[in-house]
Amino acid sequence: MEKRLKDALIAIVGKENFLDSIEDRICYSYDATNQKYLPDAVAFPGSTQEVSGIMKIASRDKIPVIPRGAGTGFTGGSLPVQGGIVMVMTRMNRIIEIDNDNLIAVVEPGVITGKFQKEVARSGLFYPPDPASLEYSTLGGNVAECSGGPRAVKYGVTRDYVLGLEAVLPTGEIIHTGARTMKSVAGYELTRLLVGSEGTLAVITKIILRLIPLPEAVRTMLAIFPEITQAAKTVSEVIRSRIIPSTLEFMDNATIRCVEDYLHMGLPVEAGALLLIEVDGEKEIIEKQVSKIDELCRKGGAERIEIARDEAEQEMLWKARRSISAAIVKLNPTKVNEDIVVPRSKVPDIINALHGIAEKYQLVIVNFGHAGDGNIHVNIMTNRKNKDEMERVEKAVEEIFRTTLNLGGTISGEHGIGITKAPYLKWEVGDTGIEVMKRIKASFDPNNLR
Amino acid sequence: MEKRLKDALIAIVGKENFLDSIEDRICYSYDATNQKYLPDAVAFPGSTQEVSGIMKIASRDKIPVIPRGAGTGFTGGSLPVQGGIVMVMTRMNRIIEIDNDNLIAVVEPGVITGKFQKEVARSGLFYPPDPASLEYSTLGGNVAECSGGPRAVKYGVTRDYVLGLEAVLPTGEIIHTGARTMKSVAGYELTRLLVGSEGTLAVITKIILRLIPLPEAVRTMLAIFPEITQAAKTVSEVIRSRIIPSTLEFMDNATIRCVEDYLHMGLPVEAGALLLIEVDGEKEIIEKQVSKIDELCRKGGAERIEIARDEAEQEMLWKARRSISAAIVKLNPTKVNEDIVVPRSKVPDIINALHGIAEKYQLVIVNFGHAGDGNIHVNIMTNRKNKDEMERVEKAVEEIFRTTLNLGGTISGEHGIGITKAPYLKWEVGDTGIEVMKRIKASFDPNNLR
Repeated sequence: MEKRLKDALIAIVGKENFLDSIEDRICYSYDATNQKYLPDAVAFPGSTQEVSGIMKIASRDKIPVIPRGAGTGFTGGSLPVQGGIVMVMTRMNRIIEIDNDNLIAVVEPGVITGKFQKEVARSGLFYPPDPASLEYSTLGGNVAECSGGPRAVKYGVTRDYVLGLEAVLPTGEIIHTGARTMKSVAGYELTRLLVGSEGTLAVITKIILRLIPLPEAVRTMLAIFPEITQAAKTVSEVIRSRIIPSTLEFMDNATIRCVEDYLHMGLPVEAGALLLIEVDGEKEIIEKQVSKIDELCRKGGAERIEIARDEAEQEMLWKARRSISAAIVKLNPTKVNEDIVVPRSKVPDIINALHGIAEKYQLVIVNFGHAGDGNIHVNIMTNRKNKDEMERVEKAVEEIFRTTLNLGGTISGEHGIGITKAPYLKWEVGDTGIEVMKRIKASFDPNNLR
Repeated sequence: MEKRLKDALIAIVGKENFLDSIEDRICYSYDATNQKYLPDAVAFPGSTQEVSGIMKIASRDKIPVIPRGAGTGFTGGSLPVQGGIVMVMTRMNRIIEIDNDNLIAVVEPGVITGKFQKEVARSGLFYPPDPASLEYSTLGGNVAECSGGPRAVKYGVTRDYVLGLEAVLPTGEIIHTGARTMKSVAGYELTRLLVGSEGTLAVITKIILRLIPLPEAVRTMLAIFPEITQAAKTVSEVIRSRIIPSTLEFMDNATIRCVEDYLHMGLPVEAGALLLIEVDGEKEIIEKQVSKIDELCRKGGAERIEIARDEAEQEMLWKARRSISAAIVKLNPTKVNEDIVVPRSKVPDIINALHGIAEKYQLVIVNFGHAGDGNIHVNIMTNRKNKDEMERVEKAVEEIFRTTLNLGGTISGEHGIGITKAPYLKWEVGDTGIEVMKRIKASFDPNNLR
C-alpha cells in the first residue's frame, strides 16, 4: 500500500488500529470457508465517523473495502477477493442502550451475539436469533448475513428483529434507516434491504433491535427413529398439531455415527435419525406440548425418547447437536458445507434425493440441521487434494441445488451467497433478478468496489 | 387515449375489462384521501401475463401505470397524479393455495384481507395483520403499503408475513422474489424492498404469506381513565410486566365524546382516555394475563374496567373502537388524518404536545390509535373550504411531524407516504436517504413513470 494512502488511514484510525505487515494481513485473509485472499491492509475503526473517513478515501482512490466482524462466515462474504482494505468492526462493540419500556436495544456492530443475548436476558428480555457461531460471531455480521439458527422455526431470523440501522455508504455518506418502532413505512424499506446484503451495499455502524419477553421455561427432548422418513413425517405431524417448537433439529444416520464416535454418549448407531426438540413458553403450556410431542413421536415410530428433567440433562441432549461440526471432520479433511432450504413437508424428498446423489457420485454426505424450517446443512466430506473426487463434488453440488429449487426451496437459508454460491444464484433468482440486484448494487456503490 | 393504444390494451385484457368513459374514469380517480386525479383509462388485468403486457406497452409509450386494489389508502398512493392507466388488480383474487404442512398461503393480490383471514381460520391458521379497512382492502394493497393494524403490537405488520412475491417490473419483466420458507438469503432482499414500496417499483401479482397457528382464545377488556397520561403509563406498565397484548388501543377524550354521541353506549364523556385491551393465546395463560392487566389498570387509576365474558360482549367493546371514523366526521366535514408513531414510552409526551398544538393553532384534534406500538392516528377535524383554518392545519401538521421526529418517531406507521406526506419524507430520511431511494426507484423504473 502506498505511503500516502497508509498515512491517510492511520490519520483516521490511529497507528494502533492499522495493520499492514504480512503476518497481520494473513490473519485477516480467511474466514470459515478456509479460502484465502490477502488484503493490502487491515483497519479497525472506532466510530461511525472513522468508518466514513475510510470509505471516502477508498472511494476517491477506488480501493475495495471489505467490512467484517469475527470472520465466521461460510460463504466467503468477508474475504478481500480483490485485495484492498479489510475493515474489522470489532472495536465498535458497545451495547448502547437496552430500552425496557420499548423493548428495543441499540448496539454497535461488533457486539458478540451470545454476549448480547445474556445481557438482555438479565432484563427478562429475549433476542432469539441463534446462529451456531453465536459465541464468536458479531451482531453486525449476523445482520449482514441475515443469520438464522435453530430457533427460526418459531422465532424467525435476524431480519425479523432489525428495526433500523445506521450505515455508511461506499461513498462515505451516513444514512439512518427504519425506526425505533415496530411500525414504520417512511419511504423504501432500506433496513431490510441492507439486512442480508452481505456488506456489499453499506457498512453497518449501528443497529436497532427488537426484543421480546424471555419465555418463562424451556423443555428439551430427544427422539430416535429407525428411519429418517419417520422422523421427517413426525416433524410435519408436530406442526400439523399446531405446536411450533422453538427448536426442531435433526441428524441423519451418518451424523449420529460421527457424533457417537466422538462423544461415546450411547447413541444407537443403527438409528436412521434423531430429532432434538425444544419447546418454550409458559410452564403449564409447554408441559402439555411435551406430552403431545412425546405421543406424536411414539406414533411416528420413535424407538427411544428422552425428556430432559433439568438444565444439566438439557445440556447433555444439546451436546450431541453442538458437537456435530467437530465430529464430522473426522470422516474426511475437507467439508463442503451447503445450506439449502426446502418447504418443511419436502424434507423427506430432499433427504431421499441426497442419499441418491451420494450414491451416484460415490461421496460421503452427512446431513443435519433445522428440520422445523426445512433448512438442511448438507456436508460433503471430501479431500481437497483428491482432484477426481472434487470434480464429482462439484457435480453433486449442482444436482443438490437443482433438486432443491425443483422442490420449491432456496440455495441458501442462512449462510449467504458470498463467493462460494455466486455462480448458482441466477438459477434461483433468474437473469432478471440478477439484473435488478446489479442495478441496486450500482445505486449504492457506483464504483462497484465490492 | 389514442385509438392505437386503446386497441392494444383491449387486445390484452378484453373489451369487458377496459374502461375509458368519463363516468368510469371518475370512479377510479380517487381514494380515501378524497383527492381526485382523472386517469386516461382503467384496465382490469386477469393474469400476470396481462399485467406484463400492459406494462410493456406503457413502458414503450412512456405512459404512467398506477396499480391499485380497493382504493382505501389514506395517502394517495393509488391516485393517477399524472394521468395514465389505472390498473385495478381486483380480478386477480384467487387464494391459490393454503398449505397446512408448511403454514403458508399463496394468493393473488386482489384477495380481500378479511376474507382471507376467515378462510385460513377454517384450517386453524392465523394471518394477523388487521388494518381497519380489512373488510374492503386487498392483500396486494396491504403488501404495497405494508399495512399494520391493532395487532401489530404483538404480531407485527404485513412485512412480517410476506415470504415471497411474483411481481412485474415497469418494463414488463416478471420476477420471483423470496421463497416458500422462513429462511432465505439468496441475493438482495427484494421481497421486503417491494413490501411498502407503494406500487412504485413493481406490480405485485402473487404473494407467498406466512401463517401461524390460530390462538386458542381471546379476551377483551376496556378500561376508562380520568387522565390520558394515566392510560399511557398503564400501557407501559403492562409491557413492563412482560405481557404483550394482541391489541392495546386508546381513545382520547374528544374521541370518547364523539363515539358516545354517535352510539349512546354509556361511555363517560368526562373521561380522559379509554383503553381497549385484548389478549390472545392459551386459555389458562390469558386468564392470568387478564387478572394482571386488571390489577395494573386499577393501580394506574382506571375508574372503570369492563371485561367481556363472551363474544357478544367482546363485540360490544370493539364497537366503540370501530365506529370512531364514522363518529368523528360529525365534528367537522374535513378530516386531515395523520399516522405518526413514537416509541411507546413517548406516548404521553406526544399526547401532551398534540394538546398544545391544538390550542396554539386553534384546531380540533382528535387522537386515537395503537397505544401498544406507539402508532397514533391524529385527526385534525377541519373544513376544506375555510382557507384560513387550512393554513393553520398545514402549520400544525408540520409541527406534529417535527415533534414526532424529535421524540425518535416516524411520520408514517401504516398509511404510507403517497402524495400527502411526500413533502415531509426528507425530514425523516434525510437528503442522502432521499437520494438512495431515488436511485433505487430508477433501478426498477428507468423511465420514472409514476
